[in-house]
Amino acid sequence: MRYLTAGHSHGEEIVVIIDGFPSNVKISPDFINNELHRRSLGHGRGERMGIQKDDAHFISGVRGGYTTGSPICAKLKNPEWGKWSAVLDPFKESMVERVMMPRPGHADLPGILKFGLSDIRDVMERASARETACRVLAGAFAKLGLLDMDIQISSHVVQIGTVSIGSYDLNSVNNELSDSSLTRCIDKEVTERMINEIEKAKLKGDSVGGIFEVIVKNLAAGIGSFAQWDLKLDARIARAIVSIQGIKGVEFGIGFGSAKICGSDYHDQIYWREDIGYFRSSNNAGGFEGGMTNGENLVIRAVMKPIPTLSKPLNSIDVSTHLEAKAHAERSDVCAVPAAAVVAEAVTAIEVFNAVQEMFGKDNFDIIKNSYACYKDAIKKK
Amino acid sequence: MRYLTAGHSHGEEIVVIIDGFPSNVKISPDFINNELHRRSLGHGRGERMGIQKDDAHFISGVRGGYTTGSPICAKLKNPEWGKWSAVLDPFKESMVERVMMPRPGHADLPGILKFGLSDIRDVMERASARETACRVLAGAFAKLGLLDMDIQISSHVVQIGTVSIGSYDLNSVNNELSDSSLTRCIDKEVTERMINEIEKAKLKGDSVGGIFEVIVKNLAAGIGSFAQWDLKLDARIARAIVSIQGIKGVEFGIGFGSAKICGSDYHDQIYWREDIGYFRSSNNAGGFEGGMTNGENLVIRAVMKPIPTLSKPLNSIDVSTHLEAKAHAERSDVCAVPAAAVVAEAVTAIEVFNAVQEMFGKDNFDIIKNSYACYKDAIKKK
Amino acid sequence: MRYLTAGHSHGEEIVVIIDGFPSNVKISPDFINNELHRRSLGHGRGERMGIQKDDAHFISGVRGGYTTGSPICAKLKNPEWGKWSAVLDPFKESMVERVMMPRPGHADLPGILKFGLSDIRDVMERASARETACRVLAGAFAKLGLLDMDIQISSHVVQIGTVSIGSYDLNSVNNELSDSSLTRCIDKEVTERMINEIEKAKLKGDSVGGIFEVIVKNLAAGIGSFAQWDLKLDARIARAIVSIQGIKGVEFGIGFGSAKICGSDYHDQIYWREDIGYFRSSNNAGGFEGGMTNGENLVIRAVMKPIPTLSKPLNSIDVSTHLEAKAHAERSDVCAVPAAAVVAEAVTAIEVFNAVQEMFGKDNFDIIKNSYACYKDAIKKK
Amino acid sequence: MRYLTAGHSHGEEIVVIIDGFPSNVKISPDFINNELHRRSLGHGRGERMGIQKDDAHFISGVRGGYTTGSPICAKLKNPEWGKWSAVLDPFKESMVERVMMPRPGHADLPGILKFGLSDIRDVMERASARETACRVLAGAFAKLGLLDMDIQISSHVVQIGTVSIGSYDLNSVNNELSDSSLTRCIDKEVTERMINEIEKAKLKGDSVGGIFEVIVKNLAAGIGSFAQWDLKLDARIARAIVSIQGIKGVEFGIGFGSAKICGSDYHDQIYWREDIGYFRSSNNAGGFEGGMTNGENLVIRAVMKPIPTLSKPLNSIDVSTHLEAKAHAERSDVCAVPAAAVVAEAVTAIEVFNAVQEMFGKDNFDIIKNSYACYKDAIKKK
Repeated sequence: MRYLTAGHSHGEEIVVIIDGFPSNVKISPDFINNELHRRSLGHGRGERMGIQKDDAHFISGVRGGYTTGSPICAKLKNPEWGKWSAVLDPFKESMVERVMMPRPGHADLPGILKFGLSDIRDVMERASARETACRVLAGAFAKLGLLDMDIQISSHVVQIGTVSIGSYDLNSVNNELSDSSLTRCIDKEVTERMINEIEKAKLKGDSVGGIFEVIVKNLAAGIGSFAQWDLKLDARIARAIVSIQGIKGVEFGIGFGSAKICGSDYHDQIYWREDIGYFRSSNNAGGFEGGMTNGENLVIRAVMKPIPTLSKPLNSIDVSTHLEAKAHAERSDVCAVPAAAVVAEAVTAIEVFNAVQEMFGKDNFDIIKNSYACYKDAIKKK
Repeated sequence: MRYLTAGHSHGEEIVVIIDGFPSNVKISPDFINNELHRRSLGHGRGERMGIQKDDAHFISGVRGGYTTGSPICAKLKNPEWGKWSAVLDPFKESMVERVMMPRPGHADLPGILKFGLSDIRDVMERASARETACRVLAGAFAKLGLLDMDIQISSHVVQIGTVSIGSYDLNSVNNELSDSSLTRCIDKEVTERMINEIEKAKLKGDSVGGIFEVIVKNLAAGIGSFAQWDLKLDARIARAIVSIQGIKGVEFGIGFGSAKICGSDYHDQIYWREDIGYFRSSNNAGGFEGGMTNGENLVIRAVMKPIPTLSKPLNSIDVSTHLEAKAHAERSDVCAVPAAAVVAEAVTAIEVFNAVQEMFGKDNFDIIKNSYACYKDAIKKK
Repeated sequence: MRYLTAGHSHGEEIVVIIDGFPSNVKISPDFINNELHRRSLGHGRGERMGIQKDDAHFISGVRGGYTTGSPICAKLKNPEWGKWSAVLDPFKESMVERVMMPRPGHADLPGILKFGLSDIRDVMERASARETACRVLAGAFAKLGLLDMDIQISSHVVQIGTVSIGSYDLNSVNNELSDSSLTRCIDKEVTERMINEIEKAKLKGDSVGGIFEVIVKNLAAGIGSFAQWDLKLDARIARAIVSIQGIKGVEFGIGFGSAKICGSDYHDQIYWREDIGYFRSSNNAGGFEGGMTNGENLVIRAVMKPIPTLSKPLNSIDVSTHLEAKAHAERSDVCAVPAAAVVAEAVTAIEVFNAVQEMFGKDNFDIIKNSYACYKDAIKKK
Repeated sequence: MRYLTAGHSHGEEIVVIIDGFPSNVKISPDFINNELHRRSLGHGRGERMGIQKDDAHFISGVRGGYTTGSPICAKLKNPEWGKWSAVLDPFKESMVERVMMPRPGHADLPGILKFGLSDIRDVMERASARETACRVLAGAFAKLGLLDMDIQISSHVVQIGTVSIGSYDLNSVNNELSDSSLTRCIDKEVTERMINEIEKAKLKGDSVGGIFEVIVKNLAAGIGSFAQWDLKLDARIARAIVSIQGIKGVEFGIGFGSAKICGSDYHDQIYWREDIGYFRSSNNAGGFEGGMTNGENLVIRAVMKPIPTLSKPLNSIDVSTHLEAKAHAERSDVCAVPAAAVVAEAVTAIEVFNAVQEMFGKDNFDIIKNSYACYKDAIKKK
């Protein structure tokens, strides 16, 4: 599957077209809307999240509850479009003042330089994380396919500001548990402390970032490839996750901790049992060897920087005068780490589903599922 | 530019084809061979590095010292091919025993499952980091283009095993300095301790990983894009670096440290001066905002896991019998972090050069350079 | 630029997302709607063309009359959606009878086999030529860019059924002239005979095809490439035009006639004049040499088969019973050759604009135009 | 599979890298060399074809007679490299006079303008049809895969100059028959007349073009797609064939003849029989409906212009003086239509194999074959 997203943050609607998604995948609108809803939750979200209860509107590619193999188009309408239609009119010049003070940490300044624009709004409207709702939408399709193959993707938040969770059992992590926390942290006591951290930042007109983890369970070994650099599944997931607004790092398994551990302790030794085939007694590699899955859980961690729009704005320059000024202030969140984790689930699902399609076929889900089942069976016996 | 690499680790030669590289770039074979040489250095490399002094052989795309716009083909010959030709014959079945004990941490096991192979050698020969020499070759072309535009890429090692460098001035980092250290560390005393760390591992038949940093200097703001997820330059660099053998994480600027710092301290405030245009007083973002460069140095850090081939091999399974066995032992390095940093320079150069080509044209370097110079001038005044 | 289209022929709307279109291109909604209108004209179109007066609705990527560099999303609403909403509901199963009799010449039969579908409507709704309206929309953007660089694209119909135009002067062909004919033929008398041909077919419940020509004027030499097979501009245009519904062949310059002419007569000899630079005294090659433009007019001809939906339906098989049956009948045209020519203009514009972007930059139209102007100047003097 | 080719026409070697070709395809070097040999045959080829007996040298991706899933690299050495090494040295400037007189019909003039080059040789060496030997090599791999799935690709020449074959039975066309003719024409008497046509041109220092046909037999229905414009298999084949040096048009089934025939006569009506499933009683569409195969033979025809290098050269301009001059003369063929047909078989094989991989998986041929067999069985019963 490939997809393109479009739409302005405050535009009439945001739109995604997904091409190359297989036919015969059962689609639940409730599942999809719930994914969108999960993206909007989390302590520290701004006012806008209250306004916007995303409800996907499906234009094509799904009929009678199943995908048809034709391109999927879906969109999310902006209930506040009336307020913005004059500002964002495609042809009439806006009468509203241009945005002239770029926000440090945002695409604002490099964006207007790159595209030769005179109103920062032209950058803001696209660079905004509102766009990630479209990715969650696309990811929900991928997830439905994966779920039907019994592959689960979940996430949880492990750090917000200076508050981090201690050790935890990866097997106990699931979305039911993390979704029940206001910070998507699986530990109730840590959740409380994270909320405090967010509240403290809010009081100061400041913002906080954090770290989350995405886990993919029950995916067969051998998905992805070592054969050419751009086919490696971990590399593709790295690209997908770093492309999420605000992400400044990604790691697999014990990640940056790998530097400290010697090889004999690091590598996940190989065992075999008749009922399950090959397996490992540890998972330091986070389920990846040579750009492929090795049959263990995929464990992916990423860091999000603090939200760059602050109610107490940073120093900037007025681009029309070159005089010092305070950065433009726009309604925003204090912390969006829980939401970013949901987006990361989505883009991970897309990359994993893509790798499955490459290996077992792109077009008809009945063929894909059958071929994947045969393969799983074969590698268990091999 | 796009490129494909091919070749077996012990095959007759390894080959790269680079397509879409512009005409009229001056090519220095000494520069390219020196890049290849830099990849082979570093304390902790195995015997093979002594045997193989890579010397690129150019087949096409360069003539009279300049690129022509036609596809570039270059290759590196294997001086030991005579020893291996019978094992790797394309058509005659090898008489040498098949490799049956997959090495934990390598592509071995998922590789034979994926491709349905019966000899792990078929995986090893391609998944080996020998392939990265081709990427250094391709990256050397990109670097020559960038250097002619006065854009420099360098790297240094900041951690090996448990030994890490303390704080350092980014401006003082350059390849002359790091290349003069056996571990590519810019601090002499830390270099000594890193060498000790490697020696300790070697004595135990073990291996160590580490962390390195790549820095891109003097690149204009606005390179890359925020407009679609797969165009973000940091995301593309993340993919390129994670695709290097052994890399388990990548981060930008202060990276995973971003979680702990509040927004008002994190974001790099914006200033302007007539002689240089826009600039920042800090660089926590590592030179990236919204998937684009912001005019500051690009700062990219990555972690490499310990080498998975150990002279004291790990537990594994004989894939022909399913009985427990020791993993296959193959001549290998104890530590390859300094080399990985050089490879990371190369793949970063490729991604940066690609982003430049997208913005200013792909085909003729005279056009690209002229257009880039006009743009730099324009954004300084904007 | 890259683009994806989506939507069902009778769905709520059809949608296009265009990504990688440069900023600062002036957009005229009237020009775009006129292009859409031109696609709907021509003698021999069915009832539907009367119903649907396409009027593009712009969601993103254009603001205050200029493109912003962000993805463009535009759509065309279906005024008859009310009639179809129950048939095409994404989640509720349709109560309308399934289409069971595949139409020879359409995607119907291979489509349901490929995707494992049980209702031919799932194929018909996407394979329909309604989708080409989205391509005209995307092409209109490309045309606006090209026009601003003084590059014109036009088309005319040279054959319908057995009626064809004789010789004509290529320089006299322009859209004003061809658009003034009901069959888009530049000869009034031939137009009359073409109309008769269509009327005859209509009376018999039959359909007719034809041949059209697309001409690109004033494009500089050297656009496209010989360097790798998939970069050749004529090859890309061939793909784009054959991908239009109903097209069964494409040729360049004198095309299939080239077989009969010896080399000394065929090849367009090279001359030079100070005021215009290099030029040719003939244009048998249709403006292409080695996958690049040579500075002469691009001349592209394509053949469209007769419309496959007939009011007097063909033999088919009921896919639910395997019994012989008449093919499904759906409201349709008798002849769509004039419309196909307009679609071919659009996809040609997209390919040409893409080749221009590859050579001069993708993102900012000011940079592209400036770089193209410098290049034109340079090759005139070379 | 994707592939890149590289190498100069008179360089040390020409090289192809094929990436994404599945493992476990049995490879016969004799089959591959025979394909290369077939490309070099045909009456009217120049002296060079006698010198160069291509014999593929395999660097990677094949071992013990089977593909491994790793990138395939293969090359063809130039036995005359010694004569050319000084002219084409990558770093030393050539002492040989630059080529200054562009040949009409070749990439020469647009090529030097595009890339800003001062020696036409830099264009000639890449734009030459020598490059197509690499495509035949890549196509031979695709053919071996297809043959193992019982899908055959053949070609024959139907016109050279003014001599064309009359009607013939498509079922009687096969490569054994066409390869036995010096012009690859299946009719002996017509072959004689074609040879005369070539001889006449040769005597005059002239050249001739022609028309050939490629046929794909026994491919299941539903391969390719209607879902997005760039997925249509006929469109992809059009691109691949037009990208062959000298090709000026391509058509499917009765092609340009489709314009003259009314819909009721044109479309291939649908029938069904228990033993074979769906079938047609005619094949005017050349086996394509809606960008997909329909189960009938694929029939693709293309026209090649006369060879542009003439021993009696055309008018040109000396690019260093702008004075009129005769075009550069280089050893060449009088007619290469039989060879072009073999190249067209190869690129068609690649596109078909790609479409098969997209639908049934890319990596492991055992999975692909099994999945394709299941599909063929299913659609027969459907």
